[in-house]
Order: sequence, then C-alpha cells, then structure tokens
Amino acid sequence: MERVNLGAMLARFTEHWSPKKIAQVNDYDVRVVKVQGEFTWHQHPDTDELFLVLSGQLTIQMRDRDVVLAPGELFVVSQGIEHCPRADTETALLLFEPSSVVNTGDAGGELTAEVEHLT
Amino acid sequence: MERVNLGAMLARFTEHWSPKKIAQVNDYDVRVVKVQGEFTWHQHPDTDELFLVLSGQLTIQMRDRDVVLAPGELFVVSQGIEHCPRADTETALLLFEPSSVVNTGDAGGELTAEVEHLT
Repeated sequence: MERVNLGAMLARFTEHWSPKKIAQVNDYDVRVVKVQGEFTWHQHPDTDELFLVLSGQLTIQMRDRDVVLAPGELFVVSQGIEHCPRADTETALLLFEPSSVVNTGDAGGELTAEVEHLT
Repeated sequence: MERVNLGAMLARFTEHWSPKKIAQVNDYDVRVVKVQGEFTWHQHPDTDELFLVLSGQLTIQMRDRDVVLAPGELFVVSQGIEHCPRADTETALLLFEPSSVVNTGDAGGELTAEVEHLT
C-alpha cells in the first residue's frame, strides 16, 4: 500500500453518511465519512465501533446520555449499545471497525450504504 | 467509557517508544506513542499494524523502501514485513493493532515496553 492522507481522501467525495474505506488492518477497516444532520438509531450486535472526529463536531446520542466530540476526540460505542450520531454542521470522522460492519447496524433502511474503497 | 482527547492523553507522558492504550475496540487497542530517534528492526508475524501521525514526521523504514508520514497521514505495515520506525524530531503517533501486539514484535530486547492503559 501507499501512505494515505486523510485530507486528500476527504477531498474526494461530498456525500454524507456514506463511509469510505481508506485502509485495512487485518479484518478491520479504517473508514472516513462526512456527516451532517441526524442519522438513524441503531446498534451493532456483534461489535464495538470507534468514532474519531477530524473536523466539525459530533454528538453521539445514546439512550442514557449524549457524548459530544470535538476534533481530536474519540469515543467507542460498545457492542449492542443503541446510538444515533448527529452533527449540526458538516463533520468529518474516522471510523475503525470490522470490515463486515454495515453503517446502519440492525436498523437497515435507506441510509444503509455500500462501503466504497478509496485507493 | 468517556470520550478521549488525543492531546490530553499525549500531555500525560513524556517517554519515547512506550505506547499507551487509550481505547479498545473489541480485541484491538487504540494506542498513542511519542517517538524520537530510531527504533529497532522488527516484524509482527501475525498481524498488520497501523500508524497515524498526529504531530511531527515519521519515517517507516522497510527493507525495500521508506515511507515518510506527515501529520494526518497513515500507513499500514503488513503482517510479516520488517520495519524500523525513525523520527528526527519528537513525533506523536496513533496506533491501531490487536491488544496482543508487543511493540518490538519478534525482535524483543530492551525497547520492549509494557502497554500502560491511560484512563
């Protein structure tokens, strides 16, 4: 592989809520995604999911609390925990999760996105 | 867990080449480490290893080429590939790798570090 520049990867797409794979570590993906607005409530029954904010601000709504992340802050949503990400302005995230993870988890629906691999 | 601020975690230690665990995703660790100078040639026979530069500049020396990473750039050293990281000035990295990974891989020696968990 070649080195991957996060800014260059983010410059290659504009759509929201559609994660792009930028690297692989064993059977895990490193993905970047741009988000704005509110996603959908869902959970991942088999896996934790890591969110690292690159720019903007992300609120991870959970049933018992919200966590607000600024750039340079990360949070891991544990397996089975219902969550609904929200961003009031356009926000860029790095995700680390098993390659098998679907963005909408158990919820499915029209926000479910194929993961394109940017190379 | 609580949110994790990368800068705050990096402010909590000064030593070089001693990764600190800051989060866990299933059986993988997110670690941060400060490095300066040259590490030791080694490989990880069972796993890939991700390096993301947070500040400074990292050269990942491999037997057939070097990869130079600036802040916001990442690289995955594949399983079994010999590598020797080098940083001419103090450099901060984020690492994603299985929790079982030892920093010196197959090489061992005095640079082998226990992974402290910053919470």
